[in-house]
Amino acid sequence: MGPHPAVAAIRLAVRHVLHDILNEHRTTSQAYGLFEQVSHERRSSPLVLVACSGGADSMALASALAFEAPKLGIRAGGITVDHGLQQGSDLRAEEVALRLRELGLDPVDSVAVTVGREGGPEAAARDARYAALDAAAVRHGATAILLGHTRDDQAETVLLGLARGSGIRSLSGMAAVSGADGRYRRPFLKVDRQTARKACMVQSLPVWDDPHNADPAYTRSRLRHEGLPALEKALGKGVVEALARTAQLSRDDADALDSWARQAETSVRDAAGRLECAKLYALPPAVRRRILRRAAIEAGAPAGSLFARHIEEVDRLITGWRGQGVINLPGKVVAQRQGGRLVIRQG
Amino acid sequence: MGPHPAVAAIRLAVRHVLHDILNEHRTTSQAYGLFEQVSHERRSSPLVLVACSGGADSMALASALAFEAPKLGIRAGGITVDHGLQQGSDLRAEEVALRLRELGLDPVDSVAVTVGREGGPEAAARDARYAALDAAAVRHGATAILLGHTRDDQAETVLLGLARGSGIRSLSGMAAVSGADGRYRRPFLKVDRQTARKACMVQSLPVWDDPHNADPAYTRSRLRHEGLPALEKALGKGVVEALARTAQLSRDDADALDSWARQAETSVRDAAGRLECAKLYALPPAVRRRILRRAAIEAGAPAGSLFARHIEEVDRLITGWRGQGVINLPGKVVAQRQGGRLVIRQG
Repeated sequence: MGPHPAVAAIRLAVRHVLHDILNEHRTTSQAYGLFEQVSHERRSSPLVLVACSGGADSMALASALAFEAPKLGIRAGGITVDHGLQQGSDLRAEEVALRLRELGLDPVDSVAVTVGREGGPEAAARDARYAALDAAAVRHGATAILLGHTRDDQAETVLLGLARGSGIRSLSGMAAVSGADGRYRRPFLKVDRQTARKACMVQSLPVWDDPHNADPAYTRSRLRHEGLPALEKALGKGVVEALARTAQLSRDDADALDSWARQAETSVRDAAGRLECAKLYALPPAVRRRILRRAAIEAGAPAGSLFARHIEEVDRLITGWRGQGVINLPGKVVAQRQGGRLVIRQG
Repeated sequence: MGPHPAVAAIRLAVRHVLHDILNEHRTTSQAYGLFEQVSHERRSSPLVLVACSGGADSMALASALAFEAPKLGIRAGGITVDHGLQQGSDLRAEEVALRLRELGLDPVDSVAVTVGREGGPEAAARDARYAALDAAAVRHGATAILLGHTRDDQAETVLLGLARGSGIRSLSGMAAVSGADGRYRRPFLKVDRQTARKACMVQSLPVWDDPHNADPAYTRSRLRHEGLPALEKALGKGVVEALARTAQLSRDDADALDSWARQAETSVRDAAGRLECAKLYALPPAVRRRILRRAAIEAGAPAGSLFARHIEEVDRLITGWRGQGVINLPGKVVAQRQGGRLVIRQG
């Protein structure tokens, strides 16, 4: 008798990602000529860490990694981050570390971080967490860190991006592969939260429910417990899957358009490197606005403060020219049209 | 003292669109040499119709058209469609027609249609309505028909598209200009429903609330009364505006990628017109999948039944080739790889 379907599903998802990691690791090792220089053991055995909060998603991920990694000759370790935001979080982190060791993971780290305030509580906690994970990867020489984000998390991320209304890049959710050298992997982006929870249950893995996840002070929590269920009620049960698919399609589309804009950018500049309005005018609006956005960021406008309406106003210097004056952009950047050229610079 | 801000807002929105219509009309008239052939009166006075259900959005639109058109030398008429779906709908249509005449519109038509069943009740009613509007435009020689869709309608349309999960084209909502020769115009896509309602109130225009709009049997109604409010509660009040902006950005992006795919399509075919796998492989996934989709539709697959997962499976013949067999697509279309070529044809 095989494993429970939920356990089979999480293991399959992890196996796919471990295969990818192994293939890339071999390619890289060969490229660097490491076959000659390092021991067989070290060469053939990359280390993969799981980032685990103790919640159902990442505990399921840890269990699947512990099961699959040895079969592929991969070393499997774990790391848990104590954000220090709740009473007793240090003890809980130690408990999670203990459970990871019980799964057979080695090395296992519990790392305490200090959460700042920049960008709000959720962003600050995330920044501190990724900094700790990056440091752990370097410290242990890990090839990859697995993250337990599920399809439900992805759907929530798409809706959060939608609320920004800043275009398809913000609809593209979380990437399956991200970070420096593709360090972060998200094997569960097509696995739903319910499956992860079920897999923990049937494997008798104790899980911890972070009270933050149910706290209506957090946007994501409101979305999870009220927004998404209401949307499912109105639109049907397939909404989460549709949102996750939208993320993938939007990401591919955004990548293609970014590459087009990069290529087109050189062709719309004159010999002195200035943007020519007539050539910009001839481009599709989607490509032209990406070039304008890149130019504004290059001139010093902070990407996070540069909204669609800013770019639209600059675009009207090209498409609706009627002698407008200087346009002020975030970061003290100014845009103006001068003799058929578009000048974007520090003001 | 000027008009109430809500009235000023709806008039401004209509004025912008009438200016566009007038400019295009002049250009077309000149292009066809009509300056010589038709009377001054007819040449300089295009007819614009408003499609009016008697609801607040389209009554506001009718009032703004009646006010703005004469100032620009445009003739303004109206049409109301009796879908025959409710007891007494014929009398109501006559009443709406009367109100349109009272606003000074001329000609005004009330047209009864028979709603079929194809595609569900909402789609069938829409098909019958647009057929009647098209016929009215031709009958009266109208240059344009104005539709009262608001920013709120646009936001709902984006969410309906999101629920399909079929990519950014389905996120692009309703176009400001659509139909044969750009016949349909939507002046209120940036005006919210509340403003339209307010404008009717301050102008003492009686409005009719279609009970279908509040009937939870309709997806759009559930979305309007439950889904969107819950989403606003979770994400903040800016959601409707963000969704409407997403529509515009997605539309531009989808247009640009479609044009790229059309151009790239010729370059990936061999002398015999067959798709070359190696050349397809070199394209960005977003462009490649659009080419595959176009090829499948060209071979006879119905666009509405062709989902992202179908295209993904065909795409794996290019990106994950391991000797797969024939892939069956809707409309009895088959796709297979043969000697480095991708063949998509009727099976």
